[in-house]
Amino acid sequence: MSAKYVWLAELLKNLIEEQSGSIFKLPTEAVLCKKYGVSRQTVRKALSVLEEGHLIEKRQGSGSYTTGLSDRAEKNTAAILMYSDTEYIYPGLLTDIRNTLQKQGFSSTVYVTGNQVSKEREVLEYLLAHPVRGIISEGCKTAFPTPNRDLYQRLLEKGVSVLFLGGNYTNLPDFPFIKDDNYEGGYFLGKYLVSLRHKKIAGIFKSDDIQGPERCYGFLSALRDESVTFQEENICYFDTAKLSALQEKHDTSFLSDFITRQLGESTAVICHNDEIAYWLIKEFIYKNLRVPEDISVVCFGSSYLNELSPVSITSLSHSRHETGTAAAEALVTLMKGVYVPARKIPWKFHKRQSSCACR
Amino acid sequence: MSAKYVWLAELLKNLIEEQSGSIFKLPTEAVLCKKYGVSRQTVRKALSVLEEGHLIEKRQGSGSYTTGLSDRAEKNTAAILMYSDTEYIYPGLLTDIRNTLQKQGFSSTVYVTGNQVSKEREVLEYLLAHPVRGIISEGCKTAFPTPNRDLYQRLLEKGVSVLFLGGNYTNLPDFPFIKDDNYEGGYFLGKYLVSLRHKKIAGIFKSDDIQGPERCYGFLSALRDESVTFQEENICYFDTAKLSALQEKHDTSFLSDFITRQLGESTAVICHNDEIAYWLIKEFIYKNLRVPEDISVVCFGSSYLNELSPVSITSLSHSRHETGTAAAEALVTLMKGVYVPARKIPWKFHKRQSSCACR
Repeated sequence: MSAKYVWLAELLKNLIEEQSGSIFKLPTEAVLCKKYGVSRQTVRKALSVLEEGHLIEKRQGSGSYTTGLSDRAEKNTAAILMYSDTEYIYPGLLTDIRNTLQKQGFSSTVYVTGNQVSKEREVLEYLLAHPVRGIISEGCKTAFPTPNRDLYQRLLEKGVSVLFLGGNYTNLPDFPFIKDDNYEGGYFLGKYLVSLRHKKIAGIFKSDDIQGPERCYGFLSALRDESVTFQEENICYFDTAKLSALQEKHDTSFLSDFITRQLGESTAVICHNDEIAYWLIKEFIYKNLRVPEDISVVCFGSSYLNELSPVSITSLSHSRHETGTAAAEALVTLMKGVYVPARKIPWKFHKRQSSCACR
Repeated sequence: MSAKYVWLAELLKNLIEEQSGSIFKLPTEAVLCKKYGVSRQTVRKALSVLEEGHLIEKRQGSGSYTTGLSDRAEKNTAAILMYSDTEYIYPGLLTDIRNTLQKQGFSSTVYVTGNQVSKEREVLEYLLAHPVRGIISEGCKTAFPTPNRDLYQRLLEKGVSVLFLGGNYTNLPDFPFIKDDNYEGGYFLGKYLVSLRHKKIAGIFKSDDIQGPERCYGFLSALRDESVTFQEENICYFDTAKLSALQEKHDTSFLSDFITRQLGESTAVICHNDEIAYWLIKEFIYKNLRVPEDISVVCFGSSYLNELSPVSITSLSHSRHETGTAAAEALVTLMKGVYVPARKIPWKFHKRQSSCACR
């Protein structure tokens, strides 16, 4: 008797394995009894084994469905490619992604890229040799077409699910992504500052990630629609090298240069994120400029840095855990063979101390 | 008698004018005689008037066709939006465009943008109020989506033909353009240097025009296909502000910084154009580095600066007058209501003194 249900459980496991992670309904108990010439008790015990192994789940009134997980633990793994695992928003974001994956039965490994295309290439080559079920990638220097296009496509052909998070590449247009609604965010912040009667508004954006150009485009479009002349010389772009110097050595020279050379008579600044806003406000204070009395500061995103800021920063943000959870859930869906559309996460606006009406 | 042919000529002029510049065949002389109840001599004299005014042209064995020109001189005008009318390749390029337009009966006005989106906006607003038949625009900061999308679209709706030259905007994908084959050029130069056994190759590209990312993408793709590890930290991006400082004040500090901080152990450099290559070679000589013995230099494009260089520069280039002539001819075609496909002008390679095999 025991041999029979173990045999049936193994047989069903193999059938599920062959479907490589997709979700489908198992035949009814009656059909299984008939097909394999076993008793209903044997079928039930075999299904229990599968259920305990998280390979199937019972749905009330509908029967048993596969979960998309494999019986082999090494197949229930995902890779996460991120700029950092220690800086800024990354520890929290990674925790949200990994917890959500874990709940769905997937373990995950984090690969730190430092936003280096060459490092991303190394990781992707490793993953081609040591396949995972899925990849969440932030992309590296997504403002530019990626020379790693070939590897992403080969991974896809091998059946690896790929989801871009935060940034996406123009030369991989068919890959699903989840990112901020950068254009709408920039547009909103631009309109907000104009509504406070600011007419000269500066901006600081990241040049080598797609977020920067998209946020700046939204910002400039808002000024255009409000008939506010572009203050183009007041727009500063910084790159990954400058950001790393800021994070590793607290080197704020590009922010200091921005204030000296590009700020001009601006009465407000839009910052790429709250990390930039945090350091910029410190520079303003150091230079005896008052925020918001002399200059308003607004930004995209809100992290612990906002709480550390001497002046709390007016910002756009998402619900806590929203981005990481959404990304992990989307990857799990992809890994189960279901299409996931590209998605832009809308912003919530929080007025804080750092902005006021132009005097 | 004289009154009659003058009357017929005026009538035909108005008919041609109503078709606003498109090319079509006139009815035969016999048909015109019958339709307007005049003698063949009257028809011939009227057609002569139109021909002298460049409104129609006779085609051997086929009859008379309109030329696409208007009887009103102010309607046969085109606008040209360029970064500069004095620097670098621009005087020559503008001369080629304007001469070609002139030969086809179109006068042209040049508007200098300094690659400023705000200046481009001013010009486009002026052109909406003072329409021309066509516009050749280099675009401003084409690496980014343009907030002037609205004005280009309104000009198009007003019947103004628009051709982008050199750069094109990602958020105006349906507008025709003529540009260099940037990707293939970068790919070729990358392969060329690898064939000379260079394994550590640096690059300098413009960040805010689409040419820069496209050329760099071709370069990195060649290294990838040759299994040469990216030397990503050796890639330098400069923007319009740095280029202006170079042109106006001969401020080469970003090139000096590049050599000190980013060149590393590279044995070759790919430059965005021969202007950058020219100044970089001067910096190398100043720093006692020999070109090509210590370091090879190659670039896109070849202008008078190549001739002024102490070491002649290995480069990609086009035939003399090719780009300007092609752009003007494409615009004339567009203004006559004929579709012009987007076109990438291929490069010719010229080995000169500045490159040699890696030792």
